Amino acid sequence: PDGLPPGGEGRKQHLHYTDPQHWGLIRIMYYEFTSKPCLLYSPQAADLVIELSQTHKAKPDLTNLVFGTVFSDHMLTIEWTSNGGWQKPHIKPFGNLSLHPACSAMHYAVQLFEGMKAYRDADDKVRLFRPMLNMNRMANSAERACLPAFDRAELVECIRRLVQVDLEWVPKSDSASLYIRPTFLGTEPSLGVKKPSRALLYVILSPVGSYFSTGAKPVSLWADSKYIRAWRGGTGDCKMGGNYGASIYAQYEAVDYGCQQVLWLYGDDHQITEVGTMNMFLFWNNENGEEELATPPLDGIILPGITRQSILELTRKWGEFKVCERYLTMADLRCALKEGRVKEMFGSGTACVVSPVGRILYQGENLHIPCQDDFPQLASRLMKELTDIQVRYTLLVTDINSMSIPHWFNVIEFNQCVVSETRVTEVDCTLTSSRAIKLEPFRRRSWLRSCPVGGHVCLRSSG
Amino acid sequence: PDGLPPGGEGRKQHLHYTDPQHWGLIRIMYYEFTSKPCLLYSPQAADLVIELSQTHKAKPDLTNLVFGTVFSDHMLTIEWTSNGGWQKPHIKPFGNLSLHPACSAMHYAVQLFEGMKAYRDADDKVRLFRPMLNMNRMANSAERACLPAFDRAELVECIRRLVQVDLEWVPKSDSASLYIRPTFLGTEPSLGVKKPSRALLYVILSPVGSYFSTGAKPVSLWADSKYIRAWRGGTGDCKMGGNYGASIYAQYEAVDYGCQQVLWLYGDDHQITEVGTMNMFLFWNNENGEEELATPPLDGIILPGITRQSILELTRKWGEFKVCERYLTMADLRCALKEGRVKEMFGSGTACVVSPVGRILYQGENLHIPCQDDFPQLASRLMKELTDIQVRYTLLVTDINSMSIPHWFNVIEFNQCVVSETRVTEVDCTLTSSRAIKLEPFRRRSWLRSCPVGGHVCLRSSG
Repeated sequence: PDGLPPGGEGRKQHLHYTDPQHWGLIRIMYYEFTSKPCLLYSPQAADLVIELSQTHKAKPDLTNLVFGTVFSDHMLTIEWTSNGGWQKPHIKPFGNLSLHPACSAMHYAVQLFEGMKAYRDADDKVRLFRPMLNMNRMANSAERACLPAFDRAELVECIRRLVQVDLEWVPKSDSASLYIRPTFLGTEPSLGVKKPSRALLYVILSPVGSYFSTGAKPVSLWADSKYIRAWRGGTGDCKMGGNYGASIYAQYEAVDYGCQQVLWLYGDDHQITEVGTMNMFLFWNNENGEEELATPPLDGIILPGITRQSILELTRKWGEFKVCERYLTMADLRCALKEGRVKEMFGSGTACVVSPVGRILYQGENLHIPCQDDFPQLASRLMKELTDIQVRYTLLVTDINSMSIPHWFNVIEFNQCVVSETRVTEVDCTLTSSRAIKLEPFRRRSWLRSCPVGGHVCLRSSG
Repeated sequence: PDGLPPGGEGRKQHLHYTDPQHWGLIRIMYYEFTSKPCLLYSPQAADLVIELSQTHKAKPDLTNLVFGTVFSDHMLTIEWTSNGGWQKPHIKPFGNLSLHPACSAMHYAVQLFEGMKAYRDADDKVRLFRPMLNMNRMANSAERACLPAFDRAELVECIRRLVQVDLEWVPKSDSASLYIRPTFLGTEPSLGVKKPSRALLYVILSPVGSYFSTGAKPVSLWADSKYIRAWRGGTGDCKMGGNYGASIYAQYEAVDYGCQQVLWLYGDDHQITEVGTMNMFLFWNNENGEEELATPPLDGIILPGITRQSILELTRKWGEFKVCERYLTMADLRCALKEGRVKEMFGSGTACVVSPVGRILYQGENLHIPCQDDFPQLASRLMKELTDIQVRYTLLVTDINSMSIPHWFNVIEFNQCVVSETRVTEVDCTLTSSRAIKLEPFRRRSWLRSCPVGGHVCLRSSG
């Protein structure tokens, strides 16, 4: 019994046991016992309380829009308490939050966020791109931040409903979209450093154009080991606020050095990890002369980007060159540049999709990265392909048993009709499992919600 | 001009120049030019707007008080904008904050805090303990978090006024005090990861007893390198929220292992760094047989604790044993324990003062630390000495020129009379500088505000 944490409900138990005789059983029992309430009290989209705004803000001019400065008319809020579990989700007019001054999100950064986008396609339908991947990452961040578990599919459904309420805010433009910002705060109203007894999950929407004010021009990077973004045993693989606030100082020092972003290094061998708030890709001929697209592996210090994962899956499907998650050092890069083996380098992220790198300032030397016509070949192709998936391709699934699901159809398609007129049934199934398919009859039309290759897929059917 | 950051006013320039020809001059010019506005717009205690609460909450029973759960009737708030600078400080009824949902403190942990205490002494006067050290650390944290600079002496004065308004909330008890929590948030209302254009500094007060619910019993620690609190190039030497939120998960894992706190390790050699949210001290006979009080050096990953510094200064003044800031590894500790060279081990912090360590679980082995009668000799002596300084000793300074200032008189003495009846003049001077002493005539009585040995001292005189 002394092994039971007082408030550690539902924490995943992937500990290495130093003393299996004594601890093993207790921990497993505890997990089995306490992991369930979190799911029982999960937010339920069916309980949504919607209060529509009486006023409607003017939509902004998209051409000179600064990222994340304008917000839509509504927001989603869901409260949680350790005693009462998840409360009913609310969609209500966008407005300030009223928070206790001792709120743990503001003192101890018990906080996390996600970034995703709603796109308007050529048929005027609105889509999300692989939202369950965001939900999975959000759940991982929540676990690390000691925030409560939630039902990921229900949260996507709540977000879908929010976007539907503010559907007019999804820009009718190829180069713009509606940025969706789920945020999750510990709202414990006391000063002890502990797991919060209260939490607030909310989602705000912001119409956005390009993330960088310079547009899609290649960025310049300052590479220095003076500041380290994340480290093993830390939180670099979670989207927790602390990773970002700590980076701003370095960002301004990069500007001091005439660069736009920081190229984050790690370790004595100056491993390349991330670029500003993006994942990093190097397209080159590697040490063995192989054409290779490389990005650092998810070893705990790298944020598992949705765009990163999609680029890896997409290029692996192409099968045109080697695709590799591997360590890359500044020495590797400098050597490859000298020998003319570097083809392209770019960052990836939800906000920018892909962003080519043009120059790196490292140890007083400017390393110039090949960058034909501002937007190099592979970066351009990925940008086009990803954008096409996000806003152009559609898939109608008629026969679940015979369908072969291409991994790039990972979109939610929003029906433009009123939600209550759509009968929605859902099933969580593994593509390789026949049991799950039997759970629900599928009719007329199904939409794919999320489909990581070989993983889980959520299918939605409206009859 | 491309070297000038757009919003980096007042950042300290302690960069190592990789390209002095090009960058050196620009940076110095920029610092000289932009560091001043911050001070001009500093919060001024003389501008304080005080709105008293119409209701008074009941004071809590101090015996079973959980740390940081009860707050006084008033709070201090000061707003800042990049255009308007610091606004007038407000003392107003304690209540919720109204914050924009995109507030950068909640998304990117642009936030920091301080922890200090007001003590009621035997003469019923109320004191702070070395508050300027908290202000200095807060200013360092603010710089690292890209929050604006502020006038430290003015902020202490604002805090003094707040405590004076809620003077009845300072417990009349030897074992309790009024915990003061200055908090500083970026309130930028947009989602770009950047220096905030708005900020909110606020201070709340909470009457507290002992930090640990178990009282002053020796704590048990879980030492494992699975989680790392802070790392070089990070923010471990600043009191930024991100350091704390990231630690909670490990704290619950320590509880899983039957321990109360985490002993934070660093590096492949498992250096001992901190204990939970405290600095760490080892009192032992070192490798050379010398009696030594050792604590890890301030190398960037250690929080520069006020209690830590005070313990170092105090024990160095005693001159009874070697006092050393040095690296200590788990191998050092284990070896010393085997050879019977360890006398005591304890954590230090504002909340607990000193907290003895009784047991460390490391690599499956329980290391038992000597701990006679629950509270070992040196820890007891330091607890008594520090508490005496905090609540018992008084110093009247009559002649600034001849006085020898013992370093432990670092208290503010609050006059119980109404503020407006007290004429206050202040001077910032270095003890070794005669110029500063001539700045102001001193009359009747002076109070020491803060006095690090050989550093700066603020003297206050009321005529």
